[in-house]
Amino acid sequence: MFFQQIVSEGLAHNSYLIGSGGKAAVIDPRRDFRIYAECADANGLEITHIFETHRNEDYVIGSAGLARCCNARIFHGESRDFSYGTSVKDGDTFAIGLLELEIRQTPGHTEESISVVVRDREVSEKPYLVFCGDTLFAGDIARTDFYGDARKAEMAGKIYDSVTGILLALGDGLIICPAHGAGSVCGETIANHPFTTAGYEKMTNPLLLMGREAFISHRVSDSPYFPPYFHTMEALNSRGALSPYELPHAGPLTVADIGKLRKSGCQIIDVRSPAAFAGGHIPGSLSIWRDGLASFMGWFLNYDEPVVIIDDFNLDMDDVCVRFIRLGYDNLKGWLAGGFISWEKAAQDIASFPTCSPADLHARMDGGDLFILDVRDIRNRKTEGYIPGSFHRYIGELPHHLDEIPRDRPVVTYCDAGYKGSLAAGILTSHGYRDVTNLLGGMAGWSHAGFTVGRD
Amino acid sequence: MFFQQIVSEGLAHNSYLIGSGGKAAVIDPRRDFRIYAECADANGLEITHIFETHRNEDYVIGSAGLARCCNARIFHGESRDFSYGTSVKDGDTFAIGLLELEIRQTPGHTEESISVVVRDREVSEKPYLVFCGDTLFAGDIARTDFYGDARKAEMAGKIYDSVTGILLALGDGLIICPAHGAGSVCGETIANHPFTTAGYEKMTNPLLLMGREAFISHRVSDSPYFPPYFHTMEALNSRGALSPYELPHAGPLTVADIGKLRKSGCQIIDVRSPAAFAGGHIPGSLSIWRDGLASFMGWFLNYDEPVVIIDDFNLDMDDVCVRFIRLGYDNLKGWLAGGFISWEKAAQDIASFPTCSPADLHARMDGGDLFILDVRDIRNRKTEGYIPGSFHRYIGELPHHLDEIPRDRPVVTYCDAGYKGSLAAGILTSHGYRDVTNLLGGMAGWSHAGFTVGRD
Amino acid sequence: MFFQQIVSEGLAHNSYLIGSGGKAAVIDPRRDFRIYAECADANGLEITHIFETHRNEDYVIGSAGLARCCNARIFHGESRDFSYGTSVKDGDTFAIGLLELEIRQTPGHTEESISVVVRDREVSEKPYLVFCGDTLFAGDIARTDFYGDARKAEMAGKIYDSVTGILLALGDGLIICPAHGAGSVCGETIANHPFTTAGYEKMTNPLLLMGREAFISHRVSDSPYFPPYFHTMEALNSRGALSPYELPHAGPLTVADIGKLRKSGCQIIDVRSPAAFAGGHIPGSLSIWRDGLASFMGWFLNYDEPVVIIDDFNLDMDDVCVRFIRLGYDNLKGWLAGGFISWEKAAQDIASFPTCSPADLHARMDGGDLFILDVRDIRNRKTEGYIPGSFHRYIGELPHHLDEIPRDRPVVTYCDAGYKGSLAAGILTSHGYRDVTNLLGGMAGWSHAGFTVGRD
Amino acid sequence: MFFQQIVSEGLAHNSYLIGSGGKAAVIDPRRDFRIYAECADANGLEITHIFETHRNEDYVIGSAGLARCCNARIFHGESRDFSYGTSVKDGDTFAIGLLELEIRQTPGHTEESISVVVRDREVSEKPYLVFCGDTLFAGDIARTDFYGDARKAEMAGKIYDSVTGILLALGDGLIICPAHGAGSVCGETIANHPFTTAGYEKMTNPLLLMGREAFISHRVSDSPYFPPYFHTMEALNSRGALSPYELPHAGPLTVADIGKLRKSGCQIIDVRSPAAFAGGHIPGSLSIWRDGLASFMGWFLNYDEPVVIIDDFNLDMDDVCVRFIRLGYDNLKGWLAGGFISWEKAAQDIASFPTCSPADLHARMDGGDLFILDVRDIRNRKTEGYIPGSFHRYIGELPHHLDEIPRDRPVVTYCDAGYKGSLAAGILTSHGYRDVTNLLGGMAGWSHAGFTVGRD
Repeated sequence: MFFQQIVSEGLAHNSYLIGSGGKAAVIDPRRDFRIYAECADANGLEITHIFETHRNEDYVIGSAGLARCCNARIFHGESRDFSYGTSVKDGDTFAIGLLELEIRQTPGHTEESISVVVRDREVSEKPYLVFCGDTLFAGDIARTDFYGDARKAEMAGKIYDSVTGILLALGDGLIICPAHGAGSVCGETIANHPFTTAGYEKMTNPLLLMGREAFISHRVSDSPYFPPYFHTMEALNSRGALSPYELPHAGPLTVADIGKLRKSGCQIIDVRSPAAFAGGHIPGSLSIWRDGLASFMGWFLNYDEPVVIIDDFNLDMDDVCVRFIRLGYDNLKGWLAGGFISWEKAAQDIASFPTCSPADLHARMDGGDLFILDVRDIRNRKTEGYIPGSFHRYIGELPHHLDEIPRDRPVVTYCDAGYKGSLAAGILTSHGYRDVTNLLGGMAGWSHAGFTVGRD
Repeated sequence: MFFQQIVSEGLAHNSYLIGSGGKAAVIDPRRDFRIYAECADANGLEITHIFETHRNEDYVIGSAGLARCCNARIFHGESRDFSYGTSVKDGDTFAIGLLELEIRQTPGHTEESISVVVRDREVSEKPYLVFCGDTLFAGDIARTDFYGDARKAEMAGKIYDSVTGILLALGDGLIICPAHGAGSVCGETIANHPFTTAGYEKMTNPLLLMGREAFISHRVSDSPYFPPYFHTMEALNSRGALSPYELPHAGPLTVADIGKLRKSGCQIIDVRSPAAFAGGHIPGSLSIWRDGLASFMGWFLNYDEPVVIIDDFNLDMDDVCVRFIRLGYDNLKGWLAGGFISWEKAAQDIASFPTCSPADLHARMDGGDLFILDVRDIRNRKTEGYIPGSFHRYIGELPHHLDEIPRDRPVVTYCDAGYKGSLAAGILTSHGYRDVTNLLGGMAGWSHAGFTVGRD
Repeated sequence: MFFQQIVSEGLAHNSYLIGSGGKAAVIDPRRDFRIYAECADANGLEITHIFETHRNEDYVIGSAGLARCCNARIFHGESRDFSYGTSVKDGDTFAIGLLELEIRQTPGHTEESISVVVRDREVSEKPYLVFCGDTLFAGDIARTDFYGDARKAEMAGKIYDSVTGILLALGDGLIICPAHGAGSVCGETIANHPFTTAGYEKMTNPLLLMGREAFISHRVSDSPYFPPYFHTMEALNSRGALSPYELPHAGPLTVADIGKLRKSGCQIIDVRSPAAFAGGHIPGSLSIWRDGLASFMGWFLNYDEPVVIIDDFNLDMDDVCVRFIRLGYDNLKGWLAGGFISWEKAAQDIASFPTCSPADLHARMDGGDLFILDVRDIRNRKTEGYIPGSFHRYIGELPHHLDEIPRDRPVVTYCDAGYKGSLAAGILTSHGYRDVTNLLGGMAGWSHAGFTVGRD
Repeated sequence: MFFQQIVSEGLAHNSYLIGSGGKAAVIDPRRDFRIYAECADANGLEITHIFETHRNEDYVIGSAGLARCCNARIFHGESRDFSYGTSVKDGDTFAIGLLELEIRQTPGHTEESISVVVRDREVSEKPYLVFCGDTLFAGDIARTDFYGDARKAEMAGKIYDSVTGILLALGDGLIICPAHGAGSVCGETIANHPFTTAGYEKMTNPLLLMGREAFISHRVSDSPYFPPYFHTMEALNSRGALSPYELPHAGPLTVADIGKLRKSGCQIIDVRSPAAFAGGHIPGSLSIWRDGLASFMGWFLNYDEPVVIIDDFNLDMDDVCVRFIRLGYDNLKGWLAGGFISWEKAAQDIASFPTCSPADLHARMDGGDLFILDVRDIRNRKTEGYIPGSFHRYIGELPHHLDEIPRDRPVVTYCDAGYKGSLAAGILTSHGYRDVTNLLGGMAGWSHAGFTVGRD
């Protein structure tokens, strides 16, 4: 059998190409789907089947484009209305050469979630691996909050039963191939393992070890962050998005080009470091670093106004752009040619704010009037502790809670390392806050410096 | 200024990207146009202008797709009806940053042919280089036979005047950037120089050195080969072809897939070597090596039936496929997965014919009844000589002249090196000729072996 | 944790890079070791530890070069005398960031074989995966014949105990990362799975399912092929080979260059297809296809005379050359520029022999005097059957058994698909056999055609 | 003929590979020489000749390594003592296939400078192009100051005669292929043209247009900057440097690794943008952007202490590292893994200084006590003007003239765009200056903003 895991960085999304006997299936293809066709070509395989483990909400799935390109068929679970593809039901099987792919319904993350169990009949009738989408992750179980508070207990029970009753029941030696790795917004504590096994998870997954009742209670009380772009993803993935290869080209833009776009309204994303952003940036731009784009742009960007990227040296811009395309931001226009120094050379308007080190902050805290704003995931406040006296508001939700942040006090923003703090500081200054400082190094630096860590 | 020559192998087609001040122009883009956008991106340039030096007949031009992709404008000569783009006239100028691009009408190859003279005003008002399309080539002048015998003298005179009166008049130091290099079907004896200068051509170009009258006489008596696909190219290039990125994916095909295609009718191109093709091939397939595809497929392939490629190891198949796409063969379906050995392992029908070395042929010639068929370009018969007693018919025209080739005598095919001889031998055997042999090494081998060379 | 499997095609060799906390370890690096350094760089890791699971006999290990390059330390088992590196013993542990790597002695394939058990302490103290070198493979157990017939039972018992007593005892969920995949000469029936689990092997591995006693009996009676280059590999891997990056450059050679090399003595490897080789080849050259190089060159090539490669189109020559370098053939000189057609054009001496299809062979068998030579692995004769009346002699051993092949009868060579048959036919004709034919498609074609298959 | 220009960015160094008939020559190879072997391989060429147009002082030449790798011979001019290679004299010719390469002595930049005139005898006996090393550049003539003030007039006369008497005498149509393009430290005003012609230079090169006497006078009064690393280059290039492929690997370093290196002494180069460097950097580090490395590191770095690179996202680190290797900095150790944010997270010591925009500076200038330091090339002060009241000292010479910069006044550094100003500001602060600000956008921004420009 041929087996290839294809990872989308940032999204922490795993897709898979599996083949035998000259035919291949793809599981959960990403939007920029050429990679599957090229990989299949290189291995003498023709893609005939595409499986969607569920209707994704965190990225644009590439099934429709890939199916047209390769003349393949799309399959997905039956309890949701898709405008394309074919529904499958529990127990359906498909042959890909000597491989047998069996569909198992594994609801919980969504109602129509399926897993695909693979048996390599060239070797044995026993199950070899399972593509389980968003159910069991390495060290985690997929989020179960998509149907509202009223159904949280129900969905948590469903996913627990899917995992234990179906996936783990296939034997400890089963290889588990989930749709996400560490860093995905679809799990909270996914371990950084490329794949795992039923046996290893049984022994080590903390959510499994707590037992069904405790897991359900945990989920009922848990409220994972829900970025607004999820709704757009749901709509696009129900009807099938445009192929990314038919979009207009995002390319270099001159200072004059961007000047025009700013007049008519545009969204500027600055992908430089916190130190660079603090040192100077286009007023109103959002500070999101490359690897944070997939997780954070969906909280702040709309799908209408043109999107412009700012970097220093414009390295690997294709890689930056595709991160927007994977989230459906077809309004991406391009990037500033020559990098931010072009802006400086043209003497355009520049905003800035100060930064501080942990030692600087510690020294200033004695004086008293500081408002220290923690914009991390609330869970990290528990696991890592916090800077004493800091106020917490998650970065994604910050723009709607500015009334909670005083305008008449010096504000110091911080997060885990400094990236989200930079984004927060930029949001505040662009809303007129005059005394904002970002803590470089964030909570990591604070702890490393040995200053007191608050704990609840 | 930024300057990049982009060569399409096989076609021996030169296109160019030139830029200054953040803006860029492309001259004669090929159909797979992404390379221009990527090259412009990497150099911080936005493509705003596309110039077509003339309506091409030997490949599908990529202007329409590139223009849509980059939101650029297309410009071409005024004396032809295009369904897209804007006409320019002699003396029109365009600014690309500090570059000035001046249009000069340089008819001859076609009526609407233009050249684009570049002055780099950052350095001087003097002309620096010219993109002259199909007029002056290194060591050659473009063919002038497209308007029928009646206008041969007229067009020859026009191109001679365009070259001497316009291009060469710009000064000996002018850099000449033609649209084709050695091997193109648009010239006959193009030198293998990446670019040249007005001064060097004046001193060395044999067609210039012969003078106007002799050149016209030469062209009146000359009849360059005219492959039938030229008509399709003309039609496609008048209306603008589909983007190559919107085509269905050509990929690996199983033996069973190809079996079905053969039943309903398909065209099989075998890109292996003459020795391999002789040793075994699919009956009815055409033997055309990779670098010969651009020059020879257009003589034999129609635009309707699916096209299938056969190779041994399927290396760089993308590169093979794009050669079909550049000539508009959107009916390309894919290639045999696993290579020709898959066909052998499946015990499918295989045709073959013998080969011989120059020594073998020489030994057999004494015996007498051999029909030796020379399928080279007629010019090579003159420049390189021929095997004594051989009959000449150009490979491209062979299928329509089979009545001239006896079926009751042993036929030995030969060409320059053995590739076109392989194609010829395959054509003969697929038309029922029973005793056909290809000379490995062709005329090169014959000469190298020291056997008598015929000369007229 | 960072995890990357790096596969060397042809050798079917798996090596691994694993990292955490900025540090990384490599397990069983191949000779061209830059890939590990580059992969580590790209993931922010510094390679500090290199583990050799055993002294390899089938390829040149790259530990010495990688260690020098990255200033890393090398570790290997204790019961063999290496001239470099440090011995480890059962139970030794190493920390790579938060990973714990524990050494387990797992003798059987060799005495000093070790496995490396990985625990990711960021997740759990339970074992996550094991790098087990040549012990347990997917669907197979490593060969145990390296210590002579007298110790076959002993070594078989040891490896069985290593696998069942140590590896499988770590839990069904343990991920098994062996040093070889399907096609390696270190196993006989390795399944085509990229990795496996203890639980899956327990249920499906036929050698485990037969039980200890039957396994030992099986191994006592089994005699896997032992190519002569193994001895050179053992010597090189005991003392540490030259870095591949310090070798002279193998590059294009003219016909004249090769003419000189032939006079002073050289070894010519023809990597084209069976059909091409049969159609014409340099007399005395060996026909070995790209993917067969790692398995077969070591039977035929010496380490002294220069090695020259012949191909048709010279695609991916780097990939061909590295296959020689991985087996220590530093006497590789280069390849024929322009491919085999250059040889033909220069009218050099060419040998050839006919081929046949299964139907051709079947028709000729009635007539009677054919000597049909089966050169496959003897095991395939059992599993796939054979052509009735054929004589078997393994391709690797053929040159030493020519006295068994009659010179006065027509010989037809065959193998699985036609590649090894081509090699055999070339060996015979270069030894003066005058009537030799290779069966295109081999046993696969014969069976597919529906002709009678012999079975013992 | 085969022709390929190979450009080393940053150095603005042009080298060339030229071939015919299976053989190839390389002119002025760079130190990382594999690119020539790979390019030759891909085009079926064997490198047999290497020509050094002169003993370079601005980069490490790769002749020695390339010669060993390809078994080629090295040739250079006769009037200097090299410890390797063969001397050639005026009029010597070499055949590369059908190409004739003729040596011409063209002294002036150095005494032993040669040019290589290429005639393609397949086309004509007329000269086609010339590789002229450091003599004539596009729009410039190479520097002639290497033999001290006493010989300035002599060397200027020599180069003028070499250019006009030899190169330009070969005909206006001659293609000129110089060893450097725009941005090289070997010329002052090289135009951004990839190559040029004798005719174009005659008409447009300002140094030629001024005539011999004026040119000599100009050169006698001119004193181009002379970075100290030139002396090391001269020594390395006289004896032949180590192959870059035998050096220890530069790779990711942890914060702890760098901490140790700082204690024992190391040189830290920060390749981030001016805004980022100002926002925070490791105390004592030097701010040099990627494309400035080749021009500026040689002023500041010694060849003994380990070199460490700091970036934000560590993209294309191979490209950064090779820029050090090309200048012989084999003491390069690696880069900070994870980028500068790793430093911040580890709460290490961080230095910073403010930046300002042109408008900020303009506003502050009224107040009075500012010391405005211009660190540009002195010529730009003339061609672009300057900020009124600014003091000039070239960045390369700044460290030796700190006594001219007052410590008791606020200092604002500026350059063309902000990069060298950042380097200057860092140097000042690391020498204890307490009030230093870098002007973002530099002179370009100042002019663009419309503020008064000083002119002498």
